[in-house]
Amino acid sequence: MRLCVNFVPLREIFCMAQVTPIKFEINAQQGEARAGVLTTRRGQIETPVFMPVGTAGTVKGIRFEELETELDARIILGNTYHLWLRPGIDVIKSAGGLHRFISWNRALLTDSGGFQVWSLGALRKISEEGTEFRSHVDGSLRFLSPEVSMEVQAALGSDIVMVFDECAPGEASHEETERSMNLTARWAKRSKEAFNRLQSEGADTGRVAAEGLSGTQALFGIVQGAGHLDLRRTSLEQTVNIGFDGYAIGGLSVGEEKSVMFEVIEDIAPRMPKDAPRYLMGVGTPEDLVEAVARGIDMFDCVLPTRNGRTGQAFTSRGKLNIKNAQFTNDTRPLDESCGCSVCRRHSRAYLRHLFMTGEMLASILLTHHNLAFFLDTMRGVRQSIRSGDFPKFRREFTERLKANGE
Amino acid sequence: MRLCVNFVPLREIFCMAQVTPIKFEINAQQGEARAGVLTTRRGQIETPVFMPVGTAGTVKGIRFEELETELDARIILGNTYHLWLRPGIDVIKSAGGLHRFISWNRALLTDSGGFQVWSLGALRKISEEGTEFRSHVDGSLRFLSPEVSMEVQAALGSDIVMVFDECAPGEASHEETERSMNLTARWAKRSKEAFNRLQSEGADTGRVAAEGLSGTQALFGIVQGAGHLDLRRTSLEQTVNIGFDGYAIGGLSVGEEKSVMFEVIEDIAPRMPKDAPRYLMGVGTPEDLVEAVARGIDMFDCVLPTRNGRTGQAFTSRGKLNIKNAQFTNDTRPLDESCGCSVCRRHSRAYLRHLFMTGEMLASILLTHHNLAFFLDTMRGVRQSIRSGDFPKFRREFTERLKANGE
Repeated sequence: MRLCVNFVPLREIFCMAQVTPIKFEINAQQGEARAGVLTTRRGQIETPVFMPVGTAGTVKGIRFEELETELDARIILGNTYHLWLRPGIDVIKSAGGLHRFISWNRALLTDSGGFQVWSLGALRKISEEGTEFRSHVDGSLRFLSPEVSMEVQAALGSDIVMVFDECAPGEASHEETERSMNLTARWAKRSKEAFNRLQSEGADTGRVAAEGLSGTQALFGIVQGAGHLDLRRTSLEQTVNIGFDGYAIGGLSVGEEKSVMFEVIEDIAPRMPKDAPRYLMGVGTPEDLVEAVARGIDMFDCVLPTRNGRTGQAFTSRGKLNIKNAQFTNDTRPLDESCGCSVCRRHSRAYLRHLFMTGEMLASILLTHHNLAFFLDTMRGVRQSIRSGDFPKFRREFTERLKANGE
Repeated sequence: MRLCVNFVPLREIFCMAQVTPIKFEINAQQGEARAGVLTTRRGQIETPVFMPVGTAGTVKGIRFEELETELDARIILGNTYHLWLRPGIDVIKSAGGLHRFISWNRALLTDSGGFQVWSLGALRKISEEGTEFRSHVDGSLRFLSPEVSMEVQAALGSDIVMVFDECAPGEASHEETERSMNLTARWAKRSKEAFNRLQSEGADTGRVAAEGLSGTQALFGIVQGAGHLDLRRTSLEQTVNIGFDGYAIGGLSVGEEKSVMFEVIEDIAPRMPKDAPRYLMGVGTPEDLVEAVARGIDMFDCVLPTRNGRTGQAFTSRGKLNIKNAQFTNDTRPLDESCGCSVCRRHSRAYLRHLFMTGEMLASILLTHHNLAFFLDTMRGVRQSIRSGDFPKFRREFTERLKANGE
């Protein structure tokens, strides 16, 4: 064992110069829309890709078997904040990392915990060093910083690590946003330094051999700057200067107008490095995904399909549908007549409504399944249409169909 | 359509004389333990069989796909009381019966609603005519009688219908139990009359052609009498005199001592018709099932695997296990090392404990799945051992192993 630990840094020096932790290849483009392949140490991911959110080590309400087979999700997201608090890093380390702990052998991306801590509002205090906050679980005082976040994410052993950032509110002033953005840049630098140290120390529990890849974790930077385009551009420059394996746009979909969100994406995405994946964090509805792809985004995550599934809302090709609605009492049609998922092939709106109204867990299970199927199928359609040169047609028809039915 | 309705009674007269709604064949016996095949209009069921409980049209926390494939449940139970209140009979009728409404094409048994109404305690008033009660859903005044129960079960279209009975409490006096038992006998007669009328009127929504069977619903009688063996024998006689397709022992596992339950089964089961299935209602733990099989029982239903799964209790070959227990925090073993279910093949106790402690739905889903797998596998083992002549050995080893581990 000792030999191995000593050996890691040497191997790093040798390998890091030649191979990267991920590879990203664009294989079709139409306008700004890009279709590509992201190769991670845990397999290939076709982009644009939607990542189901697996907050506490489970994509809520669905078994991994479904995600692997019918839905074919190639990458899911885990939340550093939640996993750090429960079950805690010792438990996950003792299991050999997050992949082993939860039994998921495909790619995992972990956020940094920054957004969750920021969302705690009054419960947190931000300083240059990091963020002090009270755990929502037991009220205990905790401290999260770039260094701690990188340590936790190394222990989780995710395949893609996010830098620890600070998020400015949607309505923040130019001054406030600039201060926050500069802090994010300093934290990004510290994140990278801590990340590199942890990689060389072999702290990454998820390390696996992968052909043509270094086998280490990949690290993504995050562009902040709220709705201020000049700050967004500066933030992008700061982030690219530090240098990361991929680049994310953070701090959108946090209360700002949708037009602001698209203005930022439209301005920033084309300026992002072309040869690295572009990840739009926490976004969005099916129409948001298609519109962001049209502006050059490659990766997405969002709780909408799972969270809304649990509250009775289904996403369909003809718009949203609230299964609670009395009009579905005797409706023998599937949720979405154009959907081929196992829920739509088998169950009626009437049955799903009944399950929801009686508080049956199966309502959440089935609506979550369908919603994830709809999001992942939409992205499949997006990728195919970019490859076949039909993306503008796909985008137009998709958007028109969504409006067709005011259910 | 009119022609069809007119035609049904004629066909009944012709068919009923020659074919039955179910067939039951014992193909191996060892002591009192019997292994057989129950043929219903919706396929064959090997007995002894455990029926997962699908109260409101769903076996809580599990998809039908899992029940059909991995678990291979051939029959599930539906609750007349719950389905009658929600979604109501009009909705289920409009969908074409319960099988179609929930999309389950295998056999369904429905209880009569008698036990649920009886369980309401102070909220119900029993008369000769039936039971008046307040709905637990909306407080509305409802009335359930043999005739209403048969009408509801015909609309549900279940493959096996239970008579409407009254259940005496475990601690009831001889006099009180006798009065209740006689009422059950009168209700059983009325149930059968109403049932026959409804069958001849074609009210059964689940009617399907089946080779060698009448295609109509089957009706089971229920033996009551609490812990009083003389009354149990009288009740059995009354029930057999009316004549049913199968016979159930009701009113057990309702608060009496376990020794009383086995005393009743031991006395009554061998006196029940040998050529009809014997169903022990609402029982029980894995050891109860094996012990009742040893005394001649063929069918079981119980909420234990599903309900206890939701509260964090796993049934294993070495006894029960409470996943909340801190000792499992870092336990990388599966719930049951001898279990081959998809949960035990994939997930550790540590992960399941984490899911339960964080309130994740997947905890209930996975524990329910394992518990049902354990119950159904146990019955598979029971059937095989009876057929191979090894049941006493199976029973002895099964019971010893359960005690082996005091987890």
